[in-house]
Amino acid sequence: MNTSENSKFPKVVIIGGGFGGLEVAKQLADEPVDILMLDKHNYHTFQPLLYQVATGSLEAESIAFSLRKNFAGQKNFRFRIAEVLTIDTANNKVITNVGDVSYDYLVIATGSTTNFFGNKDIERFAMPMKSIPEALNLRYLVLQNLEEASLKATKEEREPFLTFVLVGAGPTGVELAGALAELRNHILDRDYPELEKEHMKVYLVDFLPKVLGPFSDEGSEAARHFLTEMGVEVMLGVKVESYDGEEIKFEGGKTIKTKNVIWSAGVQGVVPAGIDKDKIERGNRISVDTINRVKGLENIFAIGDVAAMITDETPKGHPGVAQVAIQQGKLAGKNIAHLVKGEPTEPFKYNDKGSLATIGRNKAIADLGKIKFQGFFAWLIWMFVHLISLLGFRNKVVVFVNWISNYIANNGGSRLIIRRFKREELPKKDLQTAKVD
Amino acid sequence: MNTSENSKFPKVVIIGGGFGGLEVAKQLADEPVDILMLDKHNYHTFQPLLYQVATGSLEAESIAFSLRKNFAGQKNFRFRIAEVLTIDTANNKVITNVGDVSYDYLVIATGSTTNFFGNKDIERFAMPMKSIPEALNLRYLVLQNLEEASLKATKEEREPFLTFVLVGAGPTGVELAGALAELRNHILDRDYPELEKEHMKVYLVDFLPKVLGPFSDEGSEAARHFLTEMGVEVMLGVKVESYDGEEIKFEGGKTIKTKNVIWSAGVQGVVPAGIDKDKIERGNRISVDTINRVKGLENIFAIGDVAAMITDETPKGHPGVAQVAIQQGKLAGKNIAHLVKGEPTEPFKYNDKGSLATIGRNKAIADLGKIKFQGFFAWLIWMFVHLISLLGFRNKVVVFVNWISNYIANNGGSRLIIRRFKREELPKKDLQTAKVD
Repeated sequence: MNTSENSKFPKVVIIGGGFGGLEVAKQLADEPVDILMLDKHNYHTFQPLLYQVATGSLEAESIAFSLRKNFAGQKNFRFRIAEVLTIDTANNKVITNVGDVSYDYLVIATGSTTNFFGNKDIERFAMPMKSIPEALNLRYLVLQNLEEASLKATKEEREPFLTFVLVGAGPTGVELAGALAELRNHILDRDYPELEKEHMKVYLVDFLPKVLGPFSDEGSEAARHFLTEMGVEVMLGVKVESYDGEEIKFEGGKTIKTKNVIWSAGVQGVVPAGIDKDKIERGNRISVDTINRVKGLENIFAIGDVAAMITDETPKGHPGVAQVAIQQGKLAGKNIAHLVKGEPTEPFKYNDKGSLATIGRNKAIADLGKIKFQGFFAWLIWMFVHLISLLGFRNKVVVFVNWISNYIANNGGSRLIIRRFKREELPKKDLQTAKVD
Repeated sequence: MNTSENSKFPKVVIIGGGFGGLEVAKQLADEPVDILMLDKHNYHTFQPLLYQVATGSLEAESIAFSLRKNFAGQKNFRFRIAEVLTIDTANNKVITNVGDVSYDYLVIATGSTTNFFGNKDIERFAMPMKSIPEALNLRYLVLQNLEEASLKATKEEREPFLTFVLVGAGPTGVELAGALAELRNHILDRDYPELEKEHMKVYLVDFLPKVLGPFSDEGSEAARHFLTEMGVEVMLGVKVESYDGEEIKFEGGKTIKTKNVIWSAGVQGVVPAGIDKDKIERGNRISVDTINRVKGLENIFAIGDVAAMITDETPKGHPGVAQVAIQQGKLAGKNIAHLVKGEPTEPFKYNDKGSLATIGRNKAIADLGKIKFQGFFAWLIWMFVHLISLLGFRNKVVVFVNWISNYIANNGGSRLIIRRFKREELPKKDLQTAKVD
């Protein structure tokens, strides 16, 4: 690969421009290294707001930011759109679809993807939502099914198009359930005079006995209350057995006819080929030491969702959230600089700043350590935190304008079908191949 | 088709939600009719700003507006996403891919599409830009080719990826040439440190001896001057012979190696099947009388780009611009109301408000009747007119924020490749089938 570099500085290759990868590159801005970032896409995705892209409240461009533009001023930074085919750890090389690239230090920041737990039918027919293209597919499917419903003559024919089943009651499932309930409550009969909002159903299903599993019981209970109030049917302690595109079956025999199953019931690390199986922990994550170095490899780091730092204090590793990726990315950057300069490294210590989730207009949950509150003030905090975390001034302003205008009009979003979603056009997935998403 | 209507009011079917179709529906808001609008897409496209979507300065959602949302308050309005297969004029029926629909009055507002003048190779390899999906394809192609160039080792290898040939020097070609020149002058070496801006070339080609053909000589000359100043090579009086995806050939033997040919050299009306050939004029437009009624058909109107109102004063019909469509749409709506109520109709008279075109930052051309001016003030007028014409308050604000932020940063746009453009995935075009775009 032509990387226009013949410098004498150690070469740091970062795979993935998510929360973790970004921080590594930023941290190394003034260090004597050459950075090359590889990503399948030319943009960073602000995943916490993906569900608003799915429901059409925000445009994709507002929650994504060009990686080249972000680092335009950083002299030691280069970027390539590339898919990693394998890592040749013996020769310190990354093999990609656009050529090979050698490294002195490698950072694997490939994140996670949807886990269907091996159920091929569910993988085929349910919609995941972990990337912008997936969120757009989901948006188009929802809108197409509303259009389809409006063509049908009877309630029975419309039902499967107007029924939404969200599997997985983590933040993604909860936020999406809330957004779909708002679509029904405030928008459906305005935009679709031929449909009745009572006929649209939103189900939120989880195997666990509570929504927002990792939250406090107080926060979880409040979320369930908000959802029920908005008309979401919350089904807890329920396991999905199968889905064939027409009907979802649950253990115990209950079934629901639906064309819309959205799957956010689990994630798994995206591990590039070339990393030995004996280094892989539960959830397809790479086992790392306390400075995020891949066990047994001196110059390869793994951070964020794809890393499992198993210690006595964290027997299951850290949660798969942005804060972990950001903090691990920062520290990995620092530690690489230490290693380059022959200085001692610092171990990782997670600073848990708490959790936020929004359910809808004026309704959010804040679990900030011992301080827990729900409702309007939590919702303001949620908006503020997400706005300041977004990359780019323009994106902050545009998202703010969208939120204000959606709040006032209560008729949020543009709801355009720019490209029809066709299931048969989906790329065939091959989880054996490393994908940087 | 289920249209949920059993009313006794005359039924007005409008094919196409462009500038013309919108006005017909608006005009009939309080009249005793039932309106059904059909469009292939669920949104209206503000075509004058398509080129900014192509260059990544604006997101698609900002120049599009949901047709359902736009008419959400209008009680006599219904909408369906539908492709018109044919019009059965004998039985007053429109046959679509989602069922048949009968009409008392029909308005054909299907607009125009790119005219490749029968050159199949050019149609296959050159990029058109008449719809949002086409503008996005063009955006992705441009960005992918900059990425591709950055992988190449030599200037020669990079050249075809960095060469842009725009065929057709009407407003679209001129505005796109200006925007690409700005991409080169202000963004290229910031975002792509491996590329040199001197190696990127932008050519604007036309068969005519002037740019902006329908403008005044003064405006045309100023546009040519602006373009040249920005580094665009303007080639006038030059005819394209062929393009095979690698090399464009001109009459006389000159060739240019390029992966990027953008074709805006002509348009043709999109005529639904079922309209007799003897009613079709030059440019594939439907011959209409002075109230925009299709010649020989009492209850079918054609308006805007797809209509040719040939009179002594307008021997070639009206120009294919938004203003004509808007004014004809308004009058067609009024005249349908007159016909329904048994009142006399009013003939169409075009009120030419003048022409505007922008070339770039602080550079635009205004030909407003006898008043002609160019430069900064024309550019302000251009922005103001486009902002107030955009549908939706949110869109106005978002576009304004984008323009301001692009102006200040001089590093406009998000430039994301959300979905890779792959030529082999383009739908096979069949110009015989009516397409509402």
